[in-house]
Amino acid sequence: MTALPDLAAIEAMDAADGLRAMRERFILPEGLVYLDGNSLGVASKAAFTELQAAAAEEWGQDLIRSWNTAGWFDMPLTLGDRVGRLVGAAAGQTAVCDTTSINIYKALHAAMALRPDRTIIVAEAGSFPTDIYMAEGVVSTRPGASLRLEGVDAPEIEDLIDGDVAVVLVNHVNYKSGELRDMAALTQKAHEHGALVIWDLCHTAGALPVDLDGAKADFAVGCTYKYLNGGPGAPAFVYAAARHHGAISQPLSGWWGHARPFAFEKHYAAGEGIRRFLCGTQPILSLRALKGALDIWDEVDMAALREKSLGLTDLFIALVEEKCAAYGLEFESSREREKRGSQVSFRHPHAYEIMQALIARGVIGDFRAPSTMRFGFTPLYLRYADVWRAVEILEEILRTGAWQDARFAVRSAVT
Amino acid sequence: MTALPDLAAIEAMDAADGLRAMRERFILPEGLVYLDGNSLGVASKAAFTELQAAAAEEWGQDLIRSWNTAGWFDMPLTLGDRVGRLVGAAAGQTAVCDTTSINIYKALHAAMALRPDRTIIVAEAGSFPTDIYMAEGVVSTRPGASLRLEGVDAPEIEDLIDGDVAVVLVNHVNYKSGELRDMAALTQKAHEHGALVIWDLCHTAGALPVDLDGAKADFAVGCTYKYLNGGPGAPAFVYAAARHHGAISQPLSGWWGHARPFAFEKHYAAGEGIRRFLCGTQPILSLRALKGALDIWDEVDMAALREKSLGLTDLFIALVEEKCAAYGLEFESSREREKRGSQVSFRHPHAYEIMQALIARGVIGDFRAPSTMRFGFTPLYLRYADVWRAVEILEEILRTGAWQDARFAVRSAVT
Repeated sequence: MTALPDLAAIEAMDAADGLRAMRERFILPEGLVYLDGNSLGVASKAAFTELQAAAAEEWGQDLIRSWNTAGWFDMPLTLGDRVGRLVGAAAGQTAVCDTTSINIYKALHAAMALRPDRTIIVAEAGSFPTDIYMAEGVVSTRPGASLRLEGVDAPEIEDLIDGDVAVVLVNHVNYKSGELRDMAALTQKAHEHGALVIWDLCHTAGALPVDLDGAKADFAVGCTYKYLNGGPGAPAFVYAAARHHGAISQPLSGWWGHARPFAFEKHYAAGEGIRRFLCGTQPILSLRALKGALDIWDEVDMAALREKSLGLTDLFIALVEEKCAAYGLEFESSREREKRGSQVSFRHPHAYEIMQALIARGVIGDFRAPSTMRFGFTPLYLRYADVWRAVEILEEILRTGAWQDARFAVRSAVT
Repeated sequence: MTALPDLAAIEAMDAADGLRAMRERFILPEGLVYLDGNSLGVASKAAFTELQAAAAEEWGQDLIRSWNTAGWFDMPLTLGDRVGRLVGAAAGQTAVCDTTSINIYKALHAAMALRPDRTIIVAEAGSFPTDIYMAEGVVSTRPGASLRLEGVDAPEIEDLIDGDVAVVLVNHVNYKSGELRDMAALTQKAHEHGALVIWDLCHTAGALPVDLDGAKADFAVGCTYKYLNGGPGAPAFVYAAARHHGAISQPLSGWWGHARPFAFEKHYAAGEGIRRFLCGTQPILSLRALKGALDIWDEVDMAALREKSLGLTDLFIALVEEKCAAYGLEFESSREREKRGSQVSFRHPHAYEIMQALIARGVIGDFRAPSTMRFGFTPLYLRYADVWRAVEILEEILRTGAWQDARFAVRSAVT
């Protein structure tokens, strides 16, 4: 970026934004600049409409009959295919169910069962912690298995992959820095050593285009309540490449994954394809809100989404670095577009207090210990003018030292 | 029961029913006799009010802040304690999370880890199948472990318990017959052999009083969308007796069960007490509907509930046996009140078709393969007059052979 745009130029960018009309679909609290869609995406009118129908009509009136008449029984797979389209998965490879943590557990077991002569799981010390915790849980149930961590056993994950590695569990976009990995290259590297890869797409799905099939990914998991806007704690998704389907086994072998769930057989027999990742009864109301959120995505062009995402983060980085240069912020993300997700982080010794001051002034981002301020940019409902406003408020907080009052207020509230 | 009441006497029973006012709290579709609350409980005004607040205000307006301000983060334990009160669990021993299937997996692993020198899981061939399937999943991850099944390896579960048994997984009320086990006696029998017991309370919670603590149960799991009316697929619950808390481990070790979930530590450290059964992010909208449903239960006297439940099932059995004696129904439940849950089953060679005819006439029960008609009686919203009406319609279907048309209609609809 050569010269920074002024507010008039920024408003012109909004006026020319091809995704501009999307903002009308969402429920945006008055006066808020919400830069936390990477933690909990905002509600939409479509999600509320579906939720209302699910509650009042399907549960309230049709009751048990809705398992068939409202398609409840098929939802994990029908919604799975719709999420799959957004992450480059052809139909029949993606299911929506359970939580990201539990889907990691299933995928890790499935991958290790496909590589019975290998004992090593590779993961990242810098991943969202539940990925490591679930890998530790899998290791606890597989005698001889162990974990190698990027950031502990070697600086780069590529250096940990060898012929002993069964599976690499890796985040596509780092939850903290927003750094984006090259999916095709790392998958190929793992495959060269005979290892499989599970991609964690929590901070990717709905934020940028992904091509799981094209990258020859083996498994993927991810979250639907961040950029996909499915609602708080909406069920997660799990992907398994079709070439593995015949050989997949995983120990969370509940009724919904059975080949004949209504035959009430006395032994488990895994269903076909991605169905064998299903386990127990899913939270229908939460699934139906997600269905509404996905209706919006049917109209979104992912290339345009990515272009706007990069436009928003480019602008945020440039404005912060110009206007807040004097206040000791340390840029934690990547300047290279191809290495950047849809979020930007800055470190500061008083990151926690500054974020509290931002939130008190209607700019909502996230603090991540020990010293990161994380700002997520959701292209569907954010405007370039919102970026401008967020930086204006950040600059004011830093210039006036208002975060020191925030710190006091927060500490008072805790004691 | 000596002489059968007539309709006038039945209406007098309803007029004298101490739980009568409870019916007003629920949303009951016009003209329906709903005898399937043991599959999916009906909606309530309170559940809809909470769901609406969770969607419109907490998600819609407060967004990420609701994790603290609306108590989202504490819900698995605050709701757990409220379910705990209904099953005889003192506070701090029950969590609401995930699904019954997944909670069985956790509890089985936890129990086997407490009995490391033992290898056997005892379960029931006649249980709801997911219990067996999950036990098979646990066995698949524990070398040397195996399964003994009541109904396969011996006719009675008591005969399968010996010093090799780590844990007995058993249903309190059988999903099909409604037969009720003696919790205290079976738990004591298991303990005499050094085995632990997991009670599956899916068809118990909200149907009759239970005393998990008094029976010295070790673990329990159960469902909140049947008699508790929490909504379709509402998250399940898991109980662990406080005396086991210090030593519990289970492999679904996700972020929410961590001792310090917001410290983002690089290794799992199990939280205190029942918290260590939590794993991933829960579906908040579904949890909030459950919260509304539980508000109603705060006012319910469980002894009165049980008395009415037995009154309803006594009446149904007596009326069916008198009015439908000529049509080949085979009683599948227990005549002894202390061995009966809140449901009654009859077998018939054409059970499927008869149930379809009942449903077409607004009497909703369940068919369970191969030949069971299952009728659930929810004391909070059913009247004695509903029982009368259901039997009148059943008698008419059997007398006229109308189920033969139903069979034809159903087959046409399928092809």
